[in-house]
Amino acid sequence: MRTQVGIIGAGPAGLMLSHLLHLQGIESVIIEKRTREEIEGTIKAGVLEQGVVDLMKETGVGERLMREGQFHKGIELRFNGKGHRIDMHELTGGKYVTVYAQHEVIKDLVEARLKAGGEIIFNVGDVSLHDLDTNSPKIRYRKDKNGDLQEIDCDFIVGADGFHGPSRPSIPASVRKEYQKIYPFGWLGILAEAPQSSAELIYANHERGFALVSTRTPEIQRLYLQVDLNDTIANWSDDRIWSELHARLETHDGFKLIEGTIFEKDIVWPRSYICDPMQYGRLFIAGDAAHTVPPTGAKGLNLAVADVQVLSRGLDAFYKSGKTDLLERYTETCLRRVWNSERFSWYMTSMLHRFHDTTPFEQQMQLAELNYVTSSRAAATSLSENYVGLPMEW
Amino acid sequence: MRTQVGIIGAGPAGLMLSHLLHLQGIESVIIEKRTREEIEGTIKAGVLEQGVVDLMKETGVGERLMREGQFHKGIELRFNGKGHRIDMHELTGGKYVTVYAQHEVIKDLVEARLKAGGEIIFNVGDVSLHDLDTNSPKIRYRKDKNGDLQEIDCDFIVGADGFHGPSRPSIPASVRKEYQKIYPFGWLGILAEAPQSSAELIYANHERGFALVSTRTPEIQRLYLQVDLNDTIANWSDDRIWSELHARLETHDGFKLIEGTIFEKDIVWPRSYICDPMQYGRLFIAGDAAHTVPPTGAKGLNLAVADVQVLSRGLDAFYKSGKTDLLERYTETCLRRVWNSERFSWYMTSMLHRFHDTTPFEQQMQLAELNYVTSSRAAATSLSENYVGLPMEW
Repeated sequence: MRTQVGIIGAGPAGLMLSHLLHLQGIESVIIEKRTREEIEGTIKAGVLEQGVVDLMKETGVGERLMREGQFHKGIELRFNGKGHRIDMHELTGGKYVTVYAQHEVIKDLVEARLKAGGEIIFNVGDVSLHDLDTNSPKIRYRKDKNGDLQEIDCDFIVGADGFHGPSRPSIPASVRKEYQKIYPFGWLGILAEAPQSSAELIYANHERGFALVSTRTPEIQRLYLQVDLNDTIANWSDDRIWSELHARLETHDGFKLIEGTIFEKDIVWPRSYICDPMQYGRLFIAGDAAHTVPPTGAKGLNLAVADVQVLSRGLDAFYKSGKTDLLERYTETCLRRVWNSERFSWYMTSMLHRFHDTTPFEQQMQLAELNYVTSSRAAATSLSENYVGLPMEW
Repeated sequence: MRTQVGIIGAGPAGLMLSHLLHLQGIESVIIEKRTREEIEGTIKAGVLEQGVVDLMKETGVGERLMREGQFHKGIELRFNGKGHRIDMHELTGGKYVTVYAQHEVIKDLVEARLKAGGEIIFNVGDVSLHDLDTNSPKIRYRKDKNGDLQEIDCDFIVGADGFHGPSRPSIPASVRKEYQKIYPFGWLGILAEAPQSSAELIYANHERGFALVSTRTPEIQRLYLQVDLNDTIANWSDDRIWSELHARLETHDGFKLIEGTIFEKDIVWPRSYICDPMQYGRLFIAGDAAHTVPPTGAKGLNLAVADVQVLSRGLDAFYKSGKTDLLERYTETCLRRVWNSERFSWYMTSMLHRFHDTTPFEQQMQLAELNYVTSSRAAATSLSENYVGLPMEW
């Protein structure tokens, strides 16, 4: 098989890229190791930057998002027993915090690609990348996991295959510089069938640890608890989860968390990771394949979409005029945004969690930051502009 | 001797308090262990917040300040070989970065106190505090260091005697909560007779360490270098100092540092320290006696003046109407500002210095912060409003 751009991974990055390329008249093929049911059923991130919302609308995949998405005007920071609202809509000149689950974005993009005749090959196995430093790189994979070996000849390969995919390791280790920070705690996340307890997201700093009240739909709520580094899900009965959420969120201002039926639990281990460069020969990596952020800033999906916007412009210039300058600046252009999102995610994470090795002075610095950011218009604007998303060129 | 308010220490806190109390008709006596020549000749801090400038003008001690002070509209942050100006004047709605040396403030206040008949007893020894938990606390000291023991009967004692003075230790250790952070480096400061190299202050983050270009008068410059924790002044010849300043400040954008004659060198060890409470019985502590900040945020003198503004209002209410509520809230009111200034000083220090134990990820976070704060209007406004000084009630 031959295509112009071979894309590994049908997550938000791979699907959005394929969609954008299609609109530019560039053909692509996506391969994905999971089934369509799996990618459309896995509940992950849920907060979209304004720029992602605008992009979906402008490129014709925003109809359901605009109908079913939840458009919040702010978030709440909760500490010292009180909630402090940050009015992001007002502070950013009208931008929204849009809650629309990642798997819904995926459904919309899969549907659009298939309707337009795009090719997504699900359930593949043994993916490998070849001839990256030539003008005709190749992807090999097995059909239906263990089937015959297939090959796609491409002009370019895009690795959008997540943190554990084969693309990044295909960049020789000698040219890769990697940056990493592992945070000393986990995030226990639950999905519950329950009514919304709050009209907006609540980020709570509590002496027992961080807690987050989020939502996926009006009927399904996403709640998180900071847990110990070596904790396991077996330690967390439903009762213990609810009791801990009540303890961290219900302080003395009357907020009440509404319980429901927990139907999924997992623990993730927040990590900041960056690979520089994000390109090697004819391979470009995007999204989690190139960088991960702790979830506190809600930046993972948004950075993935930003990467492929940069890449689609570079590929467009290449196919329209043979110019390679945008493609050559891919790493530089993306990393400017990536590093700022890493900074913001690290800032939010540092401000909101409890760290075991913290000194009393550092604990007061955290509280001073929370007091300041909820008292100063300039500081609240700074937090807000990052949360709702800086423009592509800032 | 008897007075209403006995003040220990003729630094900016003690002198300004005595001046403010005098304007309110409250009498005070200041004792000071150094001579007048020493306190008027020791060159220390040099950047005044807008609120301090306004206070000096409003209370009749701002004439020379307005004539001889230097009113800067911004500062420069220098990193990655380039200068980035922050226009604080514009970002804060017209406030200035005022450069006017601390010992000039002291001269102006000493002159005003003496002209108004105020009593400042210099060169005292063996200062001690007594009966703090009664309504008639006492200060004892020896005249001329080793002379006869004297006693001042007071209604209140104010300890404005710096980090090493006897006032803070007079608060029983059992009620004192102390917070501290020692930074892993020193600041080597020089005073040089030289023309100004820059119209505004320059804060430089360089791989060899932090450097700061400041000024005291058009003819006298104050320059700083980050040095090792165990460094001594003996290691730093004038030649080495200039060569290191050139290396850290002159990168590739044409900036030239003008050399001169170094006439003073010292090393200070930046420290964040806070004592809570700042009051015990009839003793109130203010300024460095209660808290110290690393010098990076230029907050030391300004916090001292803020403390005594709060205190003078409390004492005014007490003497006018017998009300004690403002005095009872002294610690709480001051510490809100103190903690925010500690936060800001810690932020500036963390952003601008090189730390030996820093990871590559953390180094990139520092660079990302510098990139962000010099690119975002909201972030630059946040930095600026802290640097020129938040209002007394914010």
